[in-house]
Amino acid sequence: MLIVQKFGGTSVGDLERIQNVASRVSETKKAGNDVVVVVSAMSGETNKLVAYAEHFSSNPARAEMDMLLSSGERVTASLLAIALNEMGHEAISMTGRKAGIVTDSLHTKARIEEINPTAMNEALKEGKIIVVAGFQGVSTNGNVTTLGRGGSDLSAVAIAGAIKADLCEIYTDVSGIFTTDPRIEPKARKLTQISYDEMLELASLGAKVLQNRSVELAKKLNVNLVTRTSFSNEEGTLITKEENIMEKPLVSGIALDKGQARISLMGVADRPGIASEIFNKLAKSGVNIDMIVQNKAHNGETNIDFTIPSGDLNDAKLVVHSFVKDGDIKDESYNETICKVSVVGVGMKSHTGVAAKAFSAMAKENININMISTSEIKVSMVIDEKYGELAVRSLHDAYELEK
Amino acid sequence: MLIVQKFGGTSVGDLERIQNVASRVSETKKAGNDVVVVVSAMSGETNKLVAYAEHFSSNPARAEMDMLLSSGERVTASLLAIALNEMGHEAISMTGRKAGIVTDSLHTKARIEEINPTAMNEALKEGKIIVVAGFQGVSTNGNVTTLGRGGSDLSAVAIAGAIKADLCEIYTDVSGIFTTDPRIEPKARKLTQISYDEMLELASLGAKVLQNRSVELAKKLNVNLVTRTSFSNEEGTLITKEENIMEKPLVSGIALDKGQARISLMGVADRPGIASEIFNKLAKSGVNIDMIVQNKAHNGETNIDFTIPSGDLNDAKLVVHSFVKDGDIKDESYNETICKVSVVGVGMKSHTGVAAKAFSAMAKENININMISTSEIKVSMVIDEKYGELAVRSLHDAYELEK
Repeated sequence: MLIVQKFGGTSVGDLERIQNVASRVSETKKAGNDVVVVVSAMSGETNKLVAYAEHFSSNPARAEMDMLLSSGERVTASLLAIALNEMGHEAISMTGRKAGIVTDSLHTKARIEEINPTAMNEALKEGKIIVVAGFQGVSTNGNVTTLGRGGSDLSAVAIAGAIKADLCEIYTDVSGIFTTDPRIEPKARKLTQISYDEMLELASLGAKVLQNRSVELAKKLNVNLVTRTSFSNEEGTLITKEENIMEKPLVSGIALDKGQARISLMGVADRPGIASEIFNKLAKSGVNIDMIVQNKAHNGETNIDFTIPSGDLNDAKLVVHSFVKDGDIKDESYNETICKVSVVGVGMKSHTGVAAKAFSAMAKENININMISTSEIKVSMVIDEKYGELAVRSLHDAYELEK
Repeated sequence: MLIVQKFGGTSVGDLERIQNVASRVSETKKAGNDVVVVVSAMSGETNKLVAYAEHFSSNPARAEMDMLLSSGERVTASLLAIALNEMGHEAISMTGRKAGIVTDSLHTKARIEEINPTAMNEALKEGKIIVVAGFQGVSTNGNVTTLGRGGSDLSAVAIAGAIKADLCEIYTDVSGIFTTDPRIEPKARKLTQISYDEMLELASLGAKVLQNRSVELAKKLNVNLVTRTSFSNEEGTLITKEENIMEKPLVSGIALDKGQARISLMGVADRPGIASEIFNKLAKSGVNIDMIVQNKAHNGETNIDFTIPSGDLNDAKLVVHSFVKDGDIKDESYNETICKVSVVGVGMKSHTGVAAKAFSAMAKENININMISTSEIKVSMVIDEKYGELAVRSLHDAYELEK
């Protein structure tokens, strides 16, 4: 098999851990696989460099930050290559540039435009282990760029796609994707497999492990992703396309998102286009809308409720205020003590009654549901923040996810 | 003027010092000059990375060492560019690659093959300050290389040559070149100017400041070099071609080299080619011969004395032993308690009596001269190591160098 293995900052956090990573890569190679390794900077290193830059400027040029921050991954990559050579393997390190990772010029959050795997394919043909400095690429005009948060995962997925790897393993300090957050529900069970779409809906469960960007790219490039821990040999969770999943569970997991705020617009003028006006303005201000509920018009007025990430609340308020000032909205109210609980599972597509079971579970605990939204593979409910954990446990029980 | 300023590891040793460097560069720019800055890694950083590599291997691949070690200069370069931007300048950092420094593929001690200054010239035309990561280049097959000890100086000199800079300032913790080591002779005086050739002969005086490689390159590219300190505004020493030096002193300085050993070969067979045989074998073993004295043949035998760097003594002994074994040499003896004192000055070319004055000074102190060698601009004497400092002071006095 051709395997891409990506090790994050904690997995290469010190020299001993880098040695452990070398052992794991060595075993994978010795088992007859071809291996491309993608590494992050040693944990703490990037933060140190950011602090250095901030010593000089509160707003350093992004291109300079990329020059600065891209150094950390080079260090890890060369050290790991040295360790692997010492173990008798032929290993070479590659910068993002050498690995052919071409990006746009949006420094500090560049997007991968294409991967030219010529150098990697040549080295693989020679039987070499390749260690790629993650998180970085080179812009079409030849400057080093970085890919932003979760960038090393993106490097790994993009490389796996470009060299048509059979597997892309993302090693972190978490052993996989669970049916729900084990800190909330100790009975949470690690999933063996999950589809890309479920993973995207369960973002809050996987956020610590995988960013949506990486899952979306894996889906697009049809890369089989595995998240697992570098601290043991425990099997992880395979994230793959739905067709690859043999036994499709009704519900795969329960996600809880506490970083939400609810905005209620009361007495909105009931004229055509007003809702579109409001939401267009919000979009232009960079506010991400999640759920929207609009009541039936009454006396030429209507109420609109919607949820946004808490971080967007200030921007949203400015927009809403302007409509209130113009008289298009009579009153506004904000609620930051809400949360969103989601039940996710591809099995819902072919089964009915999944949503009903969720509502019953809430009713049984006397939890009031404020808003509901559903998709083909998800039922989301907005409830009072204080009931979040209780709701998760009830739903986990109701769908018997511990089994 | 177009000025290249190079700052070594101690000059950029911490964030405050980098800020000081930024101030100095800023002043140079504000005075109406165009500036290209070349920086080393923060002091200690390279040693740390070497120790990391040695943790994994006693003999790490050289290409991996280059990948590893080239990261330190990138950090300094980007931090300095950030600091300069914050001060209102337009500054950009460049890797060795971006600056167009092309080298051969001799990793960890690559030689600069050419500099393609297109990117630098463009940035200069736009009025930008350029900060180049020193010590590094890119091989013709696209891999990062490093230039070995003193590599950042070489980067600076080569860049100064390529962009036709008026001046190349090398900033260190030493304020310039002195008539002799001030720790030996407190009356030593800092030189205002010195020729390339004198500097090369005075290597032991300048070794802490400039490696011969850099002086040789400056001579070849006709670059006006200045060595000065980054810790004050004190003027440094200009190293330039002889023609540029107005007032040519008879003697510029006195150098002391204690890292020498003397080898005496007694009863060497007096047949044609034997000396060439011996010295060829020594050369092949990497032994650097400095001075050679051969006595007149007597009874079909001759004696040969020569000096070498102490570090080469073991290699030299192996070669000598083989000749003794073969009967071509009757006896051998070694003396490591010697030193070499040199009087250097371009003025010697046109003045007689310089050597005689040196011999008188030695005689006055009852110091026995073991060996003598002279060149157009130098008189070197091998004496007992214990008299080294005394000889330096006597010569400094004799040529009135304190004036």
